[in-house]
Amino acid sequence: MTTEPTPETPSAPNTPLLDRIASPADMKRLSDRELSQLADELRLETVRTVSQTGGHLGAGLGVVELTVALHAIFDAPRDKIIWDVSHQSYPHKILTGRRDRMKTLRQKDGISGFTKRSESPYDPFGAAHSSTSISAALGFAVARDLGGACDTGHGDAVAIIGDGAMSAGMAFEAMNNAGALGKRMFVILNDNEMSIAPPVGALSSYLSRLYAEQPFQELKAAAKGAISLLPPPLQAGARRARDMLKGLAVGGTLFEELGFSYLGPIDGHDMEQLLPILRTVHQRATGPMLIHVLTKKGKGYAPAEGADDGGHATAKFDIVTGKQSKPPSNAPSYTSVFGRALVDLAARDDRIVAVTAAMPDGTGLGLMAERYPSRCFDVGIAEQHAVTFAAGMAAGGLRPFCALYSTFLQRGYDQVVHDVAIQRLPVRFAIDRAGLVGADGATHAGSYDIAFLANLPGFVVMAAADEAELVHMVATAAAHDDGPIAFRYPRGDGEGVTMPERGEILPIGKGRMIAEGSRAAILSFGTRLGEVRRAAEALAARGITPTIADARFAKPLDREMILKLAEDHEALITIEEGAVGGFGSHVAQLLADEGVFDHGLKFRSMVLPDIFIDQASPADMYAVAGMGAQQIEAKVLEVLGIARMVGKRA
Amino acid sequence: MTTEPTPETPSAPNTPLLDRIASPADMKRLSDRELSQLADELRLETVRTVSQTGGHLGAGLGVVELTVALHAIFDAPRDKIIWDVSHQSYPHKILTGRRDRMKTLRQKDGISGFTKRSESPYDPFGAAHSSTSISAALGFAVARDLGGACDTGHGDAVAIIGDGAMSAGMAFEAMNNAGALGKRMFVILNDNEMSIAPPVGALSSYLSRLYAEQPFQELKAAAKGAISLLPPPLQAGARRARDMLKGLAVGGTLFEELGFSYLGPIDGHDMEQLLPILRTVHQRATGPMLIHVLTKKGKGYAPAEGADDGGHATAKFDIVTGKQSKPPSNAPSYTSVFGRALVDLAARDDRIVAVTAAMPDGTGLGLMAERYPSRCFDVGIAEQHAVTFAAGMAAGGLRPFCALYSTFLQRGYDQVVHDVAIQRLPVRFAIDRAGLVGADGATHAGSYDIAFLANLPGFVVMAAADEAELVHMVATAAAHDDGPIAFRYPRGDGEGVTMPERGEILPIGKGRMIAEGSRAAILSFGTRLGEVRRAAEALAARGITPTIADARFAKPLDREMILKLAEDHEALITIEEGAVGGFGSHVAQLLADEGVFDHGLKFRSMVLPDIFIDQASPADMYAVAGMGAQQIEAKVLEVLGIARMVGKRA
Repeated sequence: MTTEPTPETPSAPNTPLLDRIASPADMKRLSDRELSQLADELRLETVRTVSQTGGHLGAGLGVVELTVALHAIFDAPRDKIIWDVSHQSYPHKILTGRRDRMKTLRQKDGISGFTKRSESPYDPFGAAHSSTSISAALGFAVARDLGGACDTGHGDAVAIIGDGAMSAGMAFEAMNNAGALGKRMFVILNDNEMSIAPPVGALSSYLSRLYAEQPFQELKAAAKGAISLLPPPLQAGARRARDMLKGLAVGGTLFEELGFSYLGPIDGHDMEQLLPILRTVHQRATGPMLIHVLTKKGKGYAPAEGADDGGHATAKFDIVTGKQSKPPSNAPSYTSVFGRALVDLAARDDRIVAVTAAMPDGTGLGLMAERYPSRCFDVGIAEQHAVTFAAGMAAGGLRPFCALYSTFLQRGYDQVVHDVAIQRLPVRFAIDRAGLVGADGATHAGSYDIAFLANLPGFVVMAAADEAELVHMVATAAAHDDGPIAFRYPRGDGEGVTMPERGEILPIGKGRMIAEGSRAAILSFGTRLGEVRRAAEALAARGITPTIADARFAKPLDREMILKLAEDHEALITIEEGAVGGFGSHVAQLLADEGVFDHGLKFRSMVLPDIFIDQASPADMYAVAGMGAQQIEAKVLEVLGIARMVGKRA
Repeated sequence: MTTEPTPETPSAPNTPLLDRIASPADMKRLSDRELSQLADELRLETVRTVSQTGGHLGAGLGVVELTVALHAIFDAPRDKIIWDVSHQSYPHKILTGRRDRMKTLRQKDGISGFTKRSESPYDPFGAAHSSTSISAALGFAVARDLGGACDTGHGDAVAIIGDGAMSAGMAFEAMNNAGALGKRMFVILNDNEMSIAPPVGALSSYLSRLYAEQPFQELKAAAKGAISLLPPPLQAGARRARDMLKGLAVGGTLFEELGFSYLGPIDGHDMEQLLPILRTVHQRATGPMLIHVLTKKGKGYAPAEGADDGGHATAKFDIVTGKQSKPPSNAPSYTSVFGRALVDLAARDDRIVAVTAAMPDGTGLGLMAERYPSRCFDVGIAEQHAVTFAAGMAAGGLRPFCALYSTFLQRGYDQVVHDVAIQRLPVRFAIDRAGLVGADGATHAGSYDIAFLANLPGFVVMAAADEAELVHMVATAAAHDDGPIAFRYPRGDGEGVTMPERGEILPIGKGRMIAEGSRAAILSFGTRLGEVRRAAEALAARGITPTIADARFAKPLDREMILKLAEDHEALITIEEGAVGGFGSHVAQLLADEGVFDHGLKFRSMVLPDIFIDQASPADMYAVAGMGAQQIEAKVLEVLGIARMVGKRA
């Protein structure tokens, strides 16, 4: 798949100030009024950019003013500005020399949808998973104070983290440590849980000017005093702003107990608050400082502001109407197939419960939450807890499905080992986004779950070859009470196969034959099966008919089938959407143990290569990985010692 | 190694009440006075037991009264009493039908040093790693309310968690979720950070009686009122008890903001406080409840109370003197070798810094903390943060060593992938307790790190074959600035080899030949090399001289050496102290890719078997794993098709 050329949009907005900014250094000359105008232009540019490329929109729009204020006052790249998750970094990218490359955003050979060290010196620490920024910022602050040599020099460390990310355990661990070390650093809590009512904004504006003129130790007292001087209706608003902290389960008091100075909440869209407060803390802070900023996701672009998710992620869209241009699909997504299959089972089995870590829609559990709200648990960005909570429910006699992306399951790995596997508890892991994922790139690739699960005693590890197989695997997992079981499936749409009315319970550890052939057998684990079939079609034209089998299980292996494939064929090739150490390695271990290699077998294991693959379409990424149909065909020919005619196929 | 028979100690204490307790049901008839006496007897019995077996002593002594009170008031196993970490569960084990088996504690075929579901219905959720208990308890509470079928029925869920464990991110995630769900459950914060001065104890006793007579909503007010009525010196003591919470970075306010009712602090060694308060909460609680209990580690046994670590873990000891009987050692421990090697390098390179997650002594970083306190960071039980903090320091130009046990590195796996490997940051991972660990059993085994690190692009993964090799690997890691590097080494003492004055920087990805032989080559990764040598000696007596090589690196592999070994020998056997998916799997992948199997090679990969191995001596555990010298010898003979004469060796 190639990227369409992006047409020059005739409606390119007028951005005279932004046009003069080649790097943040150019912002130092601007007046506060000009910085406000720059923010407005940056917002227009962000909308224009994402309308042409698709991507994360709402989060970036929420931090336009904050981005301008940070770059106006701090001195990047000497000062380290670290965006948590960093899907909100598009405005930052536009200001830091990447404006002209934004049209390649999230595309093959283009710039990343996240911050990335290799992309720019203005990205001191890359991200994509959440809640890492405070740990990283603390690392920079310590390195600065211990004289570490950094190419861009050392200045301040600033982490910008959302309220959702702040609720993860990792952020708490980092705050706890940073507060104890007492080093100068800044954490900006970007809180977009609620919108800002005008009275609060007005008060905050007043407070912010007060803040700017007071030494830190007087700030809190001043704020309290200011509230009491207001008329009662405004007092209520002001208190609400503070009480809001309770809704987040964190607050000024907590931050202070953790050793941080706390300032806020302030209106993150009001440059008259942001600029003086950031200037003040920049001048005066001596230890760790938390600045609590209220923002609105999707701010300033009506279609995003109006959306339930604040315009979180979007395809290309029409700027005026906000209408997205999504390509039509012939098959349901794996995610939705899982969601529906689970709800169907849950209707008939009230022991079935589900757990998601802040991804109800991403994991397809939205439907479960709607139908059976008391049996569907969104635990927040908290994968460690999600896994052990599910283990507790399993020990208590329920049938929990823990639905996570492969890459995020890495966050709960010890819990998978210690709480689930060692105790042989029947937690069902629904592993979405297995394999390469496309536009989100290397950070979101689900490359390691086969390897890190299949070597755990007692685990059952499945991969669906298509969406009908996924339905069977959901049913198989539901029925499996003897220990943990996992099934993995990719991002994106299914193969368009006929769907079963109900899932069948598959026999554990048994594969299935897809096509009987000769000489070479291809044993597939997961959705590469489609490419294997296409490779076989091409081979048929050359008179070669490989045997094709779908392993279904990486653990337990179908020993009988695998040994028979090895016995009946000159070559055996495994293929999986995962790194070495997984399915193919387990097959190799079996073959070695059984002495199959002693007398020769042309064995090959096609796995993800030993590189991190940058964003592109999934098909392009698999081509880079050497795992497309043509490459499978070539592998068969090579193993059988048959030269492949060049130019035979496009 | 066999276990010595435990002599009947002549000084067995007089325990008339304890002698009548076959299970917690027998405690229900006892008066409060008798329960206090039972606690005293239980303490004596705990000391007697551990003096004969060794094990964790201080933590159990700290919760003797709490254990008695919980079992007197709650109804286990229907009520789920979940001990966090659970090294404090010996008194619980003694009361729940395991008293006569305590002499087998932490020994082969004996009972575990931790709670374990397979060991007793009174252990509803096993543990060993920290901070999992609240998640598990919430799971049981949800399962109860949703009608899950549990063999032991469903009642209350009670988590007992230490203040250290409470500071981990996972506990925070669980509290956040439990508070939001609002289900009845109990978290007992077992706070042994400070001792209890008498005035506080007296006041707490007064308050506890007050608590027991007041509805919950009045408790806090009553407590505040009570403090104000006291004379000033006592007021100060009372406030100190409350202020202590700040030192923990958590507190009543935080717990309440998280949706918990808070009670405490109370004296955890005073049955007159514990019993009425637990009875009251047991009767009246409707939602999540946190009870803050102050205890003293090692309480009631002077040698433990007097120790810096509260008698945390001990060998067998003399009850009267407290003197431990440790077997003499001929070689330094790997842990201490690492600690000294790191300090030697740190003296010459001020970029070297170190991070530990609450294990300064366990990881050998105590020396670094002493010599270079500003360059050694104990971040608490916070492996996720530890890894990313180290990544931040690496990005800032330092040379961080992140020293963790293999099993705890699992807690920071996503951070290893996302923050370290993808960004190719030169964090050095010192992985202690790699492989099987002995008395701590399956939960502490370091079985998976080779597999889960060696498939990460850009990682260098080493294992030390002996303590001199470890010194070289520390130096190699320090000098390696091009991406992440890890070196693993086992628990216990070295081989007694001659130590180098300084570590050499090893060539990356190069193994070393140990002995040139013929027919079979054994390629070892890690400290199995000693057993391999012993196997080779036995084989020599039969006229077989295997080639021996030390791989040193699982990644990058020494391709040249491996391919040559394959070419020059009829058989190639790899061995490693890890599960399938690791070193042997990478070797198999190389051999397959290179077509070495096409024409036959007797390849075998000796890895940890697909079972969780219970505690025993490391040697016994490796015998269970099939990886002792005799088993290596047998493998060589089997692969070469030579029958092994039965009875040839003992």
